[in-house]
Amino acid sequence: MGMIGGGIGAFIGDAHRRASRICNDYELVGGVFDADYEKSKEFAAGVGIPLQRCYKSVDALIKTELSLPAAERMEVVAIVTPNALHYGFAKKLLVAGFNVICEKPMTMTVKEAQDLEKLVAKTKKTFALTHTYTGYPMVRQMRDLIRKGVLGTIQRIDAQYYQGWINSIIYGTGSRITGVWRLDPKHAGVSSCMGDIGVHAFNLIEFTTGLEVKEVLSDLNSVKEGIQLDLDGTVLIRFSNKKLKGVIRASQVCGGLENDIVISVYGSKGSLRWGQENPNYLYFYSDSEPTRIYKPAHGYNMKNAEEAHTMPAGHPEGIYEALANIYKGAAKSIRKQKFDPCEFPTVHDGVRGMKFIHAVVNSNGKGNVWVKV
Amino acid sequence: MGMIGGGIGAFIGDAHRRASRICNDYELVGGVFDADYEKSKEFAAGVGIPLQRCYKSVDALIKTELSLPAAERMEVVAIVTPNALHYGFAKKLLVAGFNVICEKPMTMTVKEAQDLEKLVAKTKKTFALTHTYTGYPMVRQMRDLIRKGVLGTIQRIDAQYYQGWINSIIYGTGSRITGVWRLDPKHAGVSSCMGDIGVHAFNLIEFTTGLEVKEVLSDLNSVKEGIQLDLDGTVLIRFSNKKLKGVIRASQVCGGLENDIVISVYGSKGSLRWGQENPNYLYFYSDSEPTRIYKPAHGYNMKNAEEAHTMPAGHPEGIYEALANIYKGAAKSIRKQKFDPCEFPTVHDGVRGMKFIHAVVNSNGKGNVWVKV
Amino acid sequence: MGMIGGGIGAFIGDAHRRASRICNDYELVGGVFDADYEKSKEFAAGVGIPLQRCYKSVDALIKTELSLPAAERMEVVAIVTPNALHYGFAKKLLVAGFNVICEKPMTMTVKEAQDLEKLVAKTKKTFALTHTYTGYPMVRQMRDLIRKGVLGTIQRIDAQYYQGWINSIIYGTGSRITGVWRLDPKHAGVSSCMGDIGVHAFNLIEFTTGLEVKEVLSDLNSVKEGIQLDLDGTVLIRFSNKKLKGVIRASQVCGGLENDIVISVYGSKGSLRWGQENPNYLYFYSDSEPTRIYKPAHGYNMKNAEEAHTMPAGHPEGIYEALANIYKGAAKSIRKQKFDPCEFPTVHDGVRGMKFIHAVVNSNGKGNVWVKV
Amino acid sequence: MGMIGGGIGAFIGDAHRRASRICNDYELVGGVFDADYEKSKEFAAGVGIPLQRCYKSVDALIKTELSLPAAERMEVVAIVTPNALHYGFAKKLLVAGFNVICEKPMTMTVKEAQDLEKLVAKTKKTFALTHTYTGYPMVRQMRDLIRKGVLGTIQRIDAQYYQGWINSIIYGTGSRITGVWRLDPKHAGVSSCMGDIGVHAFNLIEFTTGLEVKEVLSDLNSVKEGIQLDLDGTVLIRFSNKKLKGVIRASQVCGGLENDIVISVYGSKGSLRWGQENPNYLYFYSDSEPTRIYKPAHGYNMKNAEEAHTMPAGHPEGIYEALANIYKGAAKSIRKQKFDPCEFPTVHDGVRGMKFIHAVVNSNGKGNVWVKV
Repeated sequence: MGMIGGGIGAFIGDAHRRASRICNDYELVGGVFDADYEKSKEFAAGVGIPLQRCYKSVDALIKTELSLPAAERMEVVAIVTPNALHYGFAKKLLVAGFNVICEKPMTMTVKEAQDLEKLVAKTKKTFALTHTYTGYPMVRQMRDLIRKGVLGTIQRIDAQYYQGWINSIIYGTGSRITGVWRLDPKHAGVSSCMGDIGVHAFNLIEFTTGLEVKEVLSDLNSVKEGIQLDLDGTVLIRFSNKKLKGVIRASQVCGGLENDIVISVYGSKGSLRWGQENPNYLYFYSDSEPTRIYKPAHGYNMKNAEEAHTMPAGHPEGIYEALANIYKGAAKSIRKQKFDPCEFPTVHDGVRGMKFIHAVVNSNGKGNVWVKV
Repeated sequence: MGMIGGGIGAFIGDAHRRASRICNDYELVGGVFDADYEKSKEFAAGVGIPLQRCYKSVDALIKTELSLPAAERMEVVAIVTPNALHYGFAKKLLVAGFNVICEKPMTMTVKEAQDLEKLVAKTKKTFALTHTYTGYPMVRQMRDLIRKGVLGTIQRIDAQYYQGWINSIIYGTGSRITGVWRLDPKHAGVSSCMGDIGVHAFNLIEFTTGLEVKEVLSDLNSVKEGIQLDLDGTVLIRFSNKKLKGVIRASQVCGGLENDIVISVYGSKGSLRWGQENPNYLYFYSDSEPTRIYKPAHGYNMKNAEEAHTMPAGHPEGIYEALANIYKGAAKSIRKQKFDPCEFPTVHDGVRGMKFIHAVVNSNGKGNVWVKV
Repeated sequence: MGMIGGGIGAFIGDAHRRASRICNDYELVGGVFDADYEKSKEFAAGVGIPLQRCYKSVDALIKTELSLPAAERMEVVAIVTPNALHYGFAKKLLVAGFNVICEKPMTMTVKEAQDLEKLVAKTKKTFALTHTYTGYPMVRQMRDLIRKGVLGTIQRIDAQYYQGWINSIIYGTGSRITGVWRLDPKHAGVSSCMGDIGVHAFNLIEFTTGLEVKEVLSDLNSVKEGIQLDLDGTVLIRFSNKKLKGVIRASQVCGGLENDIVISVYGSKGSLRWGQENPNYLYFYSDSEPTRIYKPAHGYNMKNAEEAHTMPAGHPEGIYEALANIYKGAAKSIRKQKFDPCEFPTVHDGVRGMKFIHAVVNSNGKGNVWVKV
Repeated sequence: MGMIGGGIGAFIGDAHRRASRICNDYELVGGVFDADYEKSKEFAAGVGIPLQRCYKSVDALIKTELSLPAAERMEVVAIVTPNALHYGFAKKLLVAGFNVICEKPMTMTVKEAQDLEKLVAKTKKTFALTHTYTGYPMVRQMRDLIRKGVLGTIQRIDAQYYQGWINSIIYGTGSRITGVWRLDPKHAGVSSCMGDIGVHAFNLIEFTTGLEVKEVLSDLNSVKEGIQLDLDGTVLIRFSNKKLKGVIRASQVCGGLENDIVISVYGSKGSLRWGQENPNYLYFYSDSEPTRIYKPAHGYNMKNAEEAHTMPAGHPEGIYEALANIYKGAAKSIRKQKFDPCEFPTVHDGVRGMKFIHAVVNSNGKGNVWVKV
């Protein structure tokens, strides 16, 4: 594996490296860790990567790696740069024949996302998008229980993603500055809150239910004078089935909240609810029996959930293991092993996400009207 | 105290009677317990009320009671009938000089609500609307903490009221039929879900924050062919402060959910969240200190919360005690004792609620546009 | 109903009065509310009880009430005085033909308890001991699930009752002084912690499992120089079945804890756990299926649990309703109606409790050896 | 790093490997993965370890590794075999100059443990015992808050470790057979429950409070005819301070329980409680302020807790990360970097654990009497 971005101080790159090591199917052998070559080399030295594979640019990486014998060459490259750079790098790498693991949001525009989708179809390479939360065992269990039909008719869908960390940035009280580029449209794209976290909530809805959001009506909030992007918003959502409606709620200004993701799917026969901060608990509500709590590492779980947890019951696994599960799924795909579609999000999920972000921003810009996704 | 409605099989009437006994400021001495006089008498006999004060009609009640010496006369009448009858009875009782405790929603139309408001102003009688959830100690603590300013700038408000019981009615699987009149516009008014429960969420927002919802944009869902009223919906909300937005979510078709009310108010310095199913826990989130859980019966609570809980800490009180607190507040008002405005919801809250319900239904009917409240 | 004790400032008397009103089978008509007759009268005046039934002494009460026609006479008397007075009053009242509702611990000595048991057998009066926690619906559900055999072989029993309020007394920092008599052997008996709260844990074990504790080995802690009674302790417990063991843990010095009662019964096929601070949640753990949470007001509950909750699901009831359920059970017994043995604790439970308290204190005094209960 | 044990099917070896990769200070280069050399080689091939470093025996490993240049040689060896083999291998490795990471319980006898302690003192090598739970950030926060004095006088200590998995073994219903050797005294030592899990509870008490347990009185339960070791038990504990008492409760037969570890320390000014199944929540209870919940990745935490969590707040880390923190601490020690004593448990903790296990078994064998630890 190679890596683009993720140098010193970048927590998401570190997360990817840990995840790749946990699942034990990857070895980081080189990359472009920072736009600043000196910093990149410093990082490489720190983690024991030979300087000759610490490249000045993605072009240099591609050129040199392609010159290596196939057995020594990087099989896959992880892109963990700011959003604006994903597209260009992913395109070059796919064209050059590399498999790609890419952070979300996948691109800046829907058009770019669709380009990548075509490219993946053409190159037949593996492209994994790290919607990390789909890697949690109980999220996979939720998906498979819904496919099995335990909810009856789905009647309402409600997804929440609330954080509070941007308060410390916009009010200048805090020191968590890694996210400042997220407020700059040049780097973050058309949206902050919806692009960074709302899209996760959207993805969890489509992932767990297998349904597509068809239309959105949004009301976004930039919260403070001088902020150009949304930091908060609510999105009404509709589906093909006109009798099913729902809502996505996301915010980066909920003071003191950490990473409060909750996905709830409500049906005629029961409901399922999962929250990320206690990820090993999945709740099933029914009128006709006591509430059930599903937990990992039990024979009652379905196959995908069971395979996504390695410890015995009661030994909590967390976010790194969730990401490792996605890495593991991608590895299976790269190695042409059998895998379930739930095992990693694809370029198609990336296209859906970009359509969602743009539809939400458009709906808000046009005065809170329905816009197709 | 007298009572209109609440005869055999009516759970809400029973709740009011228990609440009145808990707070110990009331004695039920008569009423019109059922439109069917025979059933009404049967009920009265069962609870030991003398037959001469079990009246055939509200008119008869008023006439006879007024003929009694003031010391023996009912001081207050509780109205716990289906929604459509609230207005007419309340009006007659106020005009005749009785204090009134009324179930919500207060009336069928905004006009009726405003009529009552004027009448209350004119008669100077006490009119208490039983938005029961405002009687919980931790809801009052939430209100008072917000007034004290612990949240900084309020940036987002999110209230949820999810139930699932109507599934058993609309799919004919259950036996919980007490609510069937709620699906009939003649008895329930223009809305089922928003009128019955969404309005509670709305009320909790205005109660806890002291802010008024200025505009709503709603998307309602009747869920099943043949249903005339909303059973589910989402309401975008806006306030005077344009940089504050929020959402109300309510549903009666969330399979297996019971009475899942959650009110969250998010600010620049912290956030507060309260849920009704564990009503003795109030959460305060902050970036700068550990999450706090407020519980009743502690010196750290503010006055209104402390007075609303009677047992020592750790002895949970519930919904009856919440309703009893409202009865207690109304009793103070009737007896001209000092009370805090939080101690019972008034006719003004009833007007606000009716405006909300109608604005929400209008917004949905007009194609999900903004409507003033 | 009459009442002995429970005058101004006594929270437990107030709780009994509320409970009696909630269940609506009782009317408080008189009593001896305070050893000080003036205070007693002041209390009676405050709650609207005629002075002629506010008696100077229990003897006076008995004499005068017996002189009234049976229909006007008190049917039952609630004893809510400090512990040392329970026995004498209960005895007189039973002998005089009154039914009795008595706070726990029932007496000061085992001998007294056994006397009362014989007296109840002889007089055939109803004697209800207010082990309030047995009135919670989910405690009754736990008992009935265990009787049904859902746990397989019971292998371990663990009950906890932790409070922290005595810290404020012994360190002089707090104002919660209602409990000071509990530290005085003359008023409280041989034990503070075990007599006041450990005995509740013991009672919950025998109530939910139907098993008798046969032997105890205790280690008690008086915590601070100068304290004569236990404020904390652990009790190893054994049963007839030698392969079943357990533990009771109780403390009044767990800083900041409120009323943290947890009863857990562990079996070969599953386990049940209930905690008092969220009394409407009963957890069933099993290896072969997801954890179940039982909640009140559902068709899946057994009869006793269902009858002990009156509101629809999701409307929490609390400690007053639990006590009201015991009052209701006692009323059924007094009126010779059919009732389940779970509906109120009896004089036999009182004897068991006294045996437990004395065995625990003896075990500790003798150097932590096994003592029969 | 080398490894002894942990071949195919051994979950604890896998956990150690993942942990070592997460913290990124280790590379597994060889070992003796199975007593059966063929299986060991099969394992090595599977994870890409060169066959020449897959050794037939620990002796062979030592001999060959010592013949390598220091820079290529294993610096540390992890021992993850059944209990009975720990001592012999650890001794050989220490004598040969290797640093050791060892699973618990450290040895079979106290004597062996003390031997190792002396050997570590003599060789000055790093010896880390993997009491994994001490690696959780919130356990370290609990320790440091207690050292800071937030609890006032510690008055009670209560630690619980409940599992249910052995039911499936002893009743033959389950397939979780990896633990069968734990029931055999030859492999497991004098105790099953106390040796495997009770000792963790003991360790958490000494780790978080810094106090030493001085005496124990235990009542153990073998639960079923034919079982030679304890599967369940309660241990009364005492400390130097005679006014402090406590209890350790452990069981492997609590049907349906997973890995339910709870450590609570109760003081005059407040109490702390932590549970392993939601490891990112630490509760502080106080009479004078709302309950606090500490969570990782916040500025309000103390240094050791903060360094033990790498993701931003709200991104749950789990058991692997806890173990990785211990590996990280050991790496600092091996590399002579500065570290806090909390960063990994030492051979001294191993001695304490062996003393505890033997004292508990002796107390039970002698008829539940006090035995010094």
